[in-house]
Amino acid sequence: MKLQKIDFEPIGRRGECPAGQSLLEAAHQLGVELVSLCGGKGTCHRCKVQVLAGRVSPPTENEKGTLSPQELKNGYRLACETYPLGDCKLSVPPESLTAPQRTQVEGLEVAVSPEPPVRAYHFELPPPSIEDMRADAKRVLETLYQQHRVRCCTIDLEVLRSLSPQLRSGNWQAQASIRGDEIIAIRPWPSRQLGLAVDVGTTKIAGYLLDLDSGQTLAAQGIMNPQIASGEDVISRITYIGKSSSAAARLQRLVIKALNQLVVDLCAEAEAKTKEILEIVVVGNTAMHHLLLRLPVAQLALSPFLPAVSKALDIKARDLGLRIAPGAYVHLLPNIAGFVGADHVAMLLATEVWQTGGVTLALDIGTNTEVALVSDGEIASVSCASGPAFEGAHIKDGMRAAPGAIERLRLVDDAIEYQTIGGAPPVGLCGSGILDAISQLHLAGVLDASGRMGDHPRVRTVGEQREFVLVSEEEREGWGEQEKRPAITITQNDVRELQLAKGAIRSGIQVLLDAAGHAVPEIEQVIIAGAFGSYIDVDSAITIGMLPRLPLCRFRQVGNAAGMGAKLALISQRQRVEAQRIANRVRYIELTTAPNFTQTFINATYIGYHESG
Amino acid sequence: MKLQKIDFEPIGRRGECPAGQSLLEAAHQLGVELVSLCGGKGTCHRCKVQVLAGRVSPPTENEKGTLSPQELKNGYRLACETYPLGDCKLSVPPESLTAPQRTQVEGLEVAVSPEPPVRAYHFELPPPSIEDMRADAKRVLETLYQQHRVRCCTIDLEVLRSLSPQLRSGNWQAQASIRGDEIIAIRPWPSRQLGLAVDVGTTKIAGYLLDLDSGQTLAAQGIMNPQIASGEDVISRITYIGKSSSAAARLQRLVIKALNQLVVDLCAEAEAKTKEILEIVVVGNTAMHHLLLRLPVAQLALSPFLPAVSKALDIKARDLGLRIAPGAYVHLLPNIAGFVGADHVAMLLATEVWQTGGVTLALDIGTNTEVALVSDGEIASVSCASGPAFEGAHIKDGMRAAPGAIERLRLVDDAIEYQTIGGAPPVGLCGSGILDAISQLHLAGVLDASGRMGDHPRVRTVGEQREFVLVSEEEREGWGEQEKRPAITITQNDVRELQLAKGAIRSGIQVLLDAAGHAVPEIEQVIIAGAFGSYIDVDSAITIGMLPRLPLCRFRQVGNAAGMGAKLALISQRQRVEAQRIANRVRYIELTTAPNFTQTFINATYIGYHESG
Repeated sequence: MKLQKIDFEPIGRRGECPAGQSLLEAAHQLGVELVSLCGGKGTCHRCKVQVLAGRVSPPTENEKGTLSPQELKNGYRLACETYPLGDCKLSVPPESLTAPQRTQVEGLEVAVSPEPPVRAYHFELPPPSIEDMRADAKRVLETLYQQHRVRCCTIDLEVLRSLSPQLRSGNWQAQASIRGDEIIAIRPWPSRQLGLAVDVGTTKIAGYLLDLDSGQTLAAQGIMNPQIASGEDVISRITYIGKSSSAAARLQRLVIKALNQLVVDLCAEAEAKTKEILEIVVVGNTAMHHLLLRLPVAQLALSPFLPAVSKALDIKARDLGLRIAPGAYVHLLPNIAGFVGADHVAMLLATEVWQTGGVTLALDIGTNTEVALVSDGEIASVSCASGPAFEGAHIKDGMRAAPGAIERLRLVDDAIEYQTIGGAPPVGLCGSGILDAISQLHLAGVLDASGRMGDHPRVRTVGEQREFVLVSEEEREGWGEQEKRPAITITQNDVRELQLAKGAIRSGIQVLLDAAGHAVPEIEQVIIAGAFGSYIDVDSAITIGMLPRLPLCRFRQVGNAAGMGAKLALISQRQRVEAQRIANRVRYIELTTAPNFTQTFINATYIGYHESG
Repeated sequence: MKLQKIDFEPIGRRGECPAGQSLLEAAHQLGVELVSLCGGKGTCHRCKVQVLAGRVSPPTENEKGTLSPQELKNGYRLACETYPLGDCKLSVPPESLTAPQRTQVEGLEVAVSPEPPVRAYHFELPPPSIEDMRADAKRVLETLYQQHRVRCCTIDLEVLRSLSPQLRSGNWQAQASIRGDEIIAIRPWPSRQLGLAVDVGTTKIAGYLLDLDSGQTLAAQGIMNPQIASGEDVISRITYIGKSSSAAARLQRLVIKALNQLVVDLCAEAEAKTKEILEIVVVGNTAMHHLLLRLPVAQLALSPFLPAVSKALDIKARDLGLRIAPGAYVHLLPNIAGFVGADHVAMLLATEVWQTGGVTLALDIGTNTEVALVSDGEIASVSCASGPAFEGAHIKDGMRAAPGAIERLRLVDDAIEYQTIGGAPPVGLCGSGILDAISQLHLAGVLDASGRMGDHPRVRTVGEQREFVLVSEEEREGWGEQEKRPAITITQNDVRELQLAKGAIRSGIQVLLDAAGHAVPEIEQVIIAGAFGSYIDVDSAITIGMLPRLPLCRFRQVGNAAGMGAKLALISQRQRVEAQRIANRVRYIELTTAPNFTQTFINATYIGYHESG
């Protein structure tokens, strides 16, 4: 049997597959979890891949009808209908991967040459004598200038505390890590300089361990934000803090503890020591930023919704209780407004939209969704209270993107085709599944534009509420469930929740367009950031009227761009300057003050709403 | 009976006394504790005062024989032989006061116009609105620039934590305290700005609470350094630290706790709040400086005796555990060498010797004695291990300057005339008493130059050791002691201890003179600083050969000049710059490397030694 080498990038799965297998079969054999709702019948069009190198079978008639000429020209194919004719190399777009595997892929990698804020210098001191009685610190500072022409003014107190014995045991040579004009670490030469980039979201915290000098990511991990127990969204956390004088300190302790654990875990993964981390960059929305620093948050929730502080901050990590190198700093990117924070700045930084020429829309979809419209050299941003529905909250069978969550579904005649995360028996719907469900029900005419659920063989009434059965009790039994389990359904209420969420986002986009005097077709690019934004089916989001109706090729799903922005700011001082420049340039628009906002919002809650309609 | 108004300065005692009373009687009536060993017979010459204003009786023949023409010209008189002829105003030199009262007098007041490092600005913010959504911090920084043209970059994190609610409750106006480019406090307008100057000595800690804006001293207090339980001198404290890993932290905790208590006590005295203190200046010898910061000290005690750090430091007070204003800093003046610390710099700063033209000697006598010789625009300094004998340690009947300590004594024929602190029954000898005793015994021929104790009716042998009885068992009974108490004596060992102590100081002076190529008579001024230095009888110190033989008028006893220097640096930025300049200029001479040092030291231990002999 002839074997062919198949290489799936950027996730880096390679292996040999027998000739005659489709790319979809090859992918599954190699553990690449390509989405396939139809099971390889060529009807769901989800298993799109790009052929980078090697020969494959020519496009089928089905593919020619499905893929745009541009896509075909760029080598895009449906994996289920494409057969390799030799070794080949493929690129898998994030949207063709199942959710968990997609998170392993950095949706966006911006090449930046490291220009870290902390730099290492080796030095060798003239040993002291009765003729040269300079103090240890002075000897170090003067030698660094002599040997490297770097002029430092201060040595961190914790570094000073270990300096004298260390110089003596190290035979008067060592490595200084210098930040600005301060020595923040003195260690044996050569020692690694590591850094941590963190995106503190309302729901999730993403951490990346990097080598500051090479810019290489050594480990990455996502954890839950433990503050979630005191409120799922920003407003409920602010309300919680208002109730007791110790609450703010408690929430700070929780997140600091989580970050310290993240540091330990990432270091274990990369075989590093926590003391090797010399710098942390944190991004987050303004509330998460303030809670981390234990800054007051009450004013964030009261008109005119002001941050305590907006500019970038540098704070000793130890002052926040972070256990890394004793002299290390935490750098916090600037905030823009009470509900547009450093994570938005980081997203803009990473996506580089702020330096594109045309009209670009950039969204970071989450519990709070920030949207920026870049046009004519201007950046305007709004914040939309999209709520936690996309995380599965307030949805009857909603759940997070975990094994068993329906992440994609299609209504084919009266049957439901669906795919669960990990291929596990279905237990609920994650955000992308909910989006697909509403979209499919709308297309099938079960949901009208107002969101009212009509009749359908799968629609039933429970109590006083209608619901659409996605997976019936019997179908769940078919999965071999031991006990009888209730059906997985979409209720009328679920539809209403989603209408509010998507209406918030769509109206935010509309306010930005109106303010800039642009119409939807003028948007040349839509960048969708955030974990949830990477999972969704853009087509479904357009169908329900959450995203503007534009050709699919104008959309880019870039994953955790805020985290990427944090990484850029971690390894590059120039990027920090850029971030402050972005923050200064952004014009924040408070939605509630926009003309006719209430009407715009109501319109935007309509399913299938588009500004022309 | 005619009354005359008598005003004793600088201690500020004023009152009306009957005509016909001598100035000595008037002083005692008003509670001014003038020294008088002879009881007003005109023979001890200790009750010297200076007439500043008013008419008094003409000098007696005795006075003309005792006081120099220069002194008489300047209005100096013996209080016991001078009678006021109307209201008059007198200045009492510190050496004419008993020890406890002398400490109430600032020996030295240098007039410096305050130029504090922390400055207060009132501001009134434009209230935020939906049209002006600047972050609170940004609003403050921009308004300060607009209203005062002060450009700040940062706001202390603790200040940020209270900023937002405070601005709202204060109706958008407040007072900012700015240090460098940082806002370190925001309080209601107007709020006082206080500062604390501290001299951390090996034995004692002196604290001064000042108003930063007026430069006025609001309260002063001296306490013991609690580290003394872990070693009386620097070396034994360093040894203590070497014995356990937690010892350094323990000693730091002790001194920080003492300083926090000092803060509380000084504030109580001045009716101030600890949070009103916005700046602390600390001076101390290098070891005390390092122990306060928990810097390593082992290298201080090993040749070539290096400090961990010598330059001036600015550290957040809260990082050291000091409980004052949350954003306040501690400024530590620069050190010079392992055994010449910031206290020496402060002493040079306060005495202004560094800017005098001629040859000046400045000593700060203590457990460790630092000596500087200023000549031809150069400053050279040495450190002498004088030990704790002057504090009464290692002396059989030695004690600190407390009630009952013999502080002055004279041998008249075979009788001892003495004065105790507080006029209490004698219980021992403090440093100045010991000095007087050795001097008197030498003058009487009881002690020869080598320190050997010869015969005298009051000399006896106890065990194998000779001792001179100052207050016999019977004489103590005469004081009405309930129980029989042993005699107070000076032993042969005590003499040896004092020879070592004074030899250390005298040899240090000699090394400086030799290095600069000057002879004793060229010294135009000798400044004696330190609490002990203020108590001593300079004549006795010359007699035993501790101080060089020079006319008494060339000596100035200036009290705690290091503390005064700390006060200057507290209220004046210019003085801080000056202090760093002094520290840079001082050439430190390590005594053990001086040519023939051993011989110089041995010579200097001789009683009555002077370089000509």
